[in-house]
Amino acid sequence: MRILGIDPGLRFTGYGLVEASRSRMTVVEAGVIRTASRSPLPARLRELHEGVRDVLADGRPTAVALEDLFAHTAFPRTAIVMGHVCGVICLAAAQAGVPVESIPPAAVKRAIVASGRAGKRQIQRTVRTLLRLGEQPGAHVGDALAIALVALFRRGASPPPARAQDLP
Amino acid sequence: MRILGIDPGLRFTGYGLVEASRSRMTVVEAGVIRTASRSPLPARLRELHEGVRDVLADGRPTAVALEDLFAHTAFPRTAIVMGHVCGVICLAAAQAGVPVESIPPAAVKRAIVASGRAGKRQIQRTVRTLLRLGEQPGAHVGDALAIALVALFRRGASPPPARAQDLP
Repeated sequence: MRILGIDPGLRFTGYGLVEASRSRMTVVEAGVIRTASRSPLPARLRELHEGVRDVLADGRPTAVALEDLFAHTAFPRTAIVMGHVCGVICLAAAQAGVPVESIPPAAVKRAIVASGRAGKRQIQRTVRTLLRLGEQPGAHVGDALAIALVALFRRGASPPPARAQDLP
Repeated sequence: MRILGIDPGLRFTGYGLVEASRSRMTVVEAGVIRTASRSPLPARLRELHEGVRDVLADGRPTAVALEDLFAHTAFPRTAIVMGHVCGVICLAAAQAGVPVESIPPAAVKRAIVASGRAGKRQIQRTVRTLLRLGEQPGAHVGDALAIALVALFRRGASPPPARAQDLP
C-alpha cells in the first residue's frame, strides 16, 4: 500500500510517497514541484500538472491524499487560486486512474500528534520520528508526508508508537 | 481572429467560438460540455478537460476568454469548486498553446449593453442580435458568446450597432 501525500501550492507543491508494509512505513520518494512565479497562471498550472503526472507515473501510488481546501475559505482569493491548483492535481490523478481523498488539516493534526491544535513544528518532528528520517524534511515535504501518514492510518497501517516521546 | 468564450461550470460549461472578419462577427461553433453529477470530482474534471481539449483542437482559437472568478467570492465553497473548474480549463488552454484572459462579469455587461447592471435576459437578447442568430441560445452558450464578444471588442473588432435597438 502506497500513498502519495500532497501539500498543494501554486509556487511550491510538496509531495511524499509513503509505503506501508506489515510493521513499518517508509518514504519511497519525496520532493517539491516548483512553478516559475513570473509565468502566467495557465503556464504554471501546466508545469504543476506535468510534475504531478511524472510523480504519479514513477511512484504508482494506491491513492493520492490531499489537504482539504475548505480550510482556506477565510481568504477567498487564496481559496480560488488553491482551487485551480487542486483542480489540476485532481485531474492528473484521475488521468492516472488513482483515487483522491481530501483530508482536513485538523484531522492531520489529531492523527499525527493527538491534538487538533498542534503546532507545525510538533507535527514535523513527529513525522520525522514515525518515518525514521535521518533529517528534518522541509515544510512542504513534511506536510505532504503527514497527509500520507494519515491516509495510511485510515487504512489500518501500523499505528504510531507511544506519542509521549514525540512531545516537545 | 477567433475567440473561444467559456462560461465555466462543473455541471455545464458553455462555450462559443466567434470569428471576427472585417465587418462582422460570426459564430463558428458553440455548445455545452456536461459532466456526470454522480461521478467524483476528479473524474468530472477529467471529462471537462477532455471536452475543452477537443474544442480547442477543433476550433483553433486565437485566445480563450473566461469569466473572471473573483466575482464568486461571496460563496467561498462555490469559489473553490469553480477554482477547480477554471484550473482545468486554463490547463487545457496552456497545453494547446492558447493564451487565456479573464473578463469580469460587470465588464461583459458594460461592453454588451452599456450598463454594468444589465439583466441576463437583456444580455442574451443583445448577443443574439449582434451575432444575427436565428434563435435564442441557451443560458450557458449565451454567456460564453457574450464573453467571446467582449474579448473581440477589446481587440478592436467591429463595435456593436447602435444599442438603442437592443434595449427592451
